Amino acid sequence: MEKNVLVTGGCGFIGSHLIDLLVDQGFFVIVVDNLSGNTSTKFLEQHLEEKKATFYQYDIRNLELLLSIPLEFDSIFHLAAQSDVKKSVEEPEFDFSVNTVGTFNILELMRKKDIQNLVFAGSGGTVYGELAASPTPEDYPLKPISIYGSAKAAAEMYCSSYSSLYGLDIVSLRLGNIYGPRSKRGVMYDFYNKLKTNPSKLDILGDGNQTKSYLYIEDTIDAFNMLYQLNTRGFDVYNVSSAKAIKVVDIAETVTKILGIKNVKYSFTNEKRGWEGDVSFVSPDVTKLKQLGWAPKISLNKGIEMYLEWLSQT
Amino acid sequence: MEKNVLVTGGCGFIGSHLIDLLVDQGFFVIVVDNLSGNTSTKFLEQHLEEKKATFYQYDIRNLELLLSIPLEFDSIFHLAAQSDVKKSVEEPEFDFSVNTVGTFNILELMRKKDIQNLVFAGSGGTVYGELAASPTPEDYPLKPISIYGSAKAAAEMYCSSYSSLYGLDIVSLRLGNIYGPRSKRGVMYDFYNKLKTNPSKLDILGDGNQTKSYLYIEDTIDAFNMLYQLNTRGFDVYNVSSAKAIKVVDIAETVTKILGIKNVKYSFTNEKRGWEGDVSFVSPDVTKLKQLGWAPKISLNKGIEMYLEWLSQT
Repeated sequence: MEKNVLVTGGCGFIGSHLIDLLVDQGFFVIVVDNLSGNTSTKFLEQHLEEKKATFYQYDIRNLELLLSIPLEFDSIFHLAAQSDVKKSVEEPEFDFSVNTVGTFNILELMRKKDIQNLVFAGSGGTVYGELAASPTPEDYPLKPISIYGSAKAAAEMYCSSYSSLYGLDIVSLRLGNIYGPRSKRGVMYDFYNKLKTNPSKLDILGDGNQTKSYLYIEDTIDAFNMLYQLNTRGFDVYNVSSAKAIKVVDIAETVTKILGIKNVKYSFTNEKRGWEGDVSFVSPDVTKLKQLGWAPKISLNKGIEMYLEWLSQT
Repeated sequence: MEKNVLVTGGCGFIGSHLIDLLVDQGFFVIVVDNLSGNTSTKFLEQHLEEKKATFYQYDIRNLELLLSIPLEFDSIFHLAAQSDVKKSVEEPEFDFSVNTVGTFNILELMRKKDIQNLVFAGSGGTVYGELAASPTPEDYPLKPISIYGSAKAAAEMYCSSYSSLYGLDIVSLRLGNIYGPRSKRGVMYDFYNKLKTNPSKLDILGDGNQTKSYLYIEDTIDAFNMLYQLNTRGFDVYNVSSAKAIKVVDIAETVTKILGIKNVKYSFTNEKRGWEGDVSFVSPDVTKLKQLGWAPKISLNKGIEMYLEWLSQT
């Protein structure tokens, strides 16, 4: 018999790649997504046609709808989120309802339907806050500076007790900045579009010194796969990121070089942060994940090249 | 002009003692309490009569009601909570709505009404979880094992970002087990009532080896006062507890001795925890608070004596 798994946010960037892998591995995927933003079921179509997946346009804020799904499953990959840090600061209540209430609902779904496993898309880029050690290990105190980061940290606080009280097995992947095909946001996407409109000038948010680690989607999905297969008991967290952080201005250099654009004039906003709630230095320590045998396969240069190639074709 | 402050949960055990102090210090106290459980305004009556306080029977789950309060104030003491760990495990959704949504509403109230200061009643007995270091310092990773503990930890995650984003000054008091007059729960209350009914036998929840630190209400209010006066910038947390943890069975010994009861037969449930979600070993490190000059004045023996005296008169 096929094994069923449920993926929330399965129409999004990371979720849809994850589903490709799960289908490949023979899982039948129950997809939950509210199709907010500009998402659609387009990356799912083939799986739906081949009856390898089924789709519910449900919102995780509505627990009753989640409970009404008539299929059995024993694992959930919870990726549905309001994932825009800027927006979280502009609309705290909205972010709270999707990210904190939404994740609480997923845990309630597990408790009420006796579902054993949860793989949670946490955040390595926002939960530690600004003054974190570099690189930042998983047991570093959490001091988020954005509403989004608070929600991801709060969600983990509930994962901890649900795991302990109800015997659930939960792993949180504290994701860094993930990029690659199907992503329609982030600094590389922003640079690509700006340079397409005007190749002689590039407006960079912040002072250009924000330094963050980026991870290609394929390496990210590898980590999801490894940590799901690992079958951790109880609740555990892993930073999932590249080991090396890079300055925003160096990303700009790489993007312009790959695009073959010369003499671009950079302008900066001369603020430390790219936007309100932005953590200007992000470098999670990935030692714990590497000790399991995981290592990123795609260099930043190669990754950006493949991503820009995909962007140029869409 | 009198300075106004708002106290949520002001009709409860700790809240009502805090209000006595604030009124003494010349503050005009706006009290918010939904009078759930067995609470009433009885401890407030004198302050209301003397026009030193005003009372709103509002629920913190309703942000609109909180926003409708027509009075100005620049500080909030947020003590309203579903404070029963056992109940939190039986009714996670209820606990989430009061403790997590409720505290989020308090932060939204501050953001929307431009209120500068928050003193938050956090929890030192539940946020660190079971395997915590002993004594447990404030920067220890949070791993709650009850829904209540998760809510108190999640609330602090939001305090962190609200403070950073909106410039709010917030201090969280991670309270241990607080006891004293006006408290109608906890192990001492439980023992007193059981022994009153039957002085020859005492049923103790758990195996009697649960070890926790207890703090008398007067010393607790001292800590509230000191930390409010300190006027910390940003967000900070302090364990508020006694430095010494004591076994439940030793509490039983102390209570029976003070009551002058001899030859009590103890019976145990022979489980490690007193109830689901109970942390069996609680000993927060109070070095940080002591460095400010705070020290508990009431010994456990003296405190229990005063508490039992009060219980015998009610």
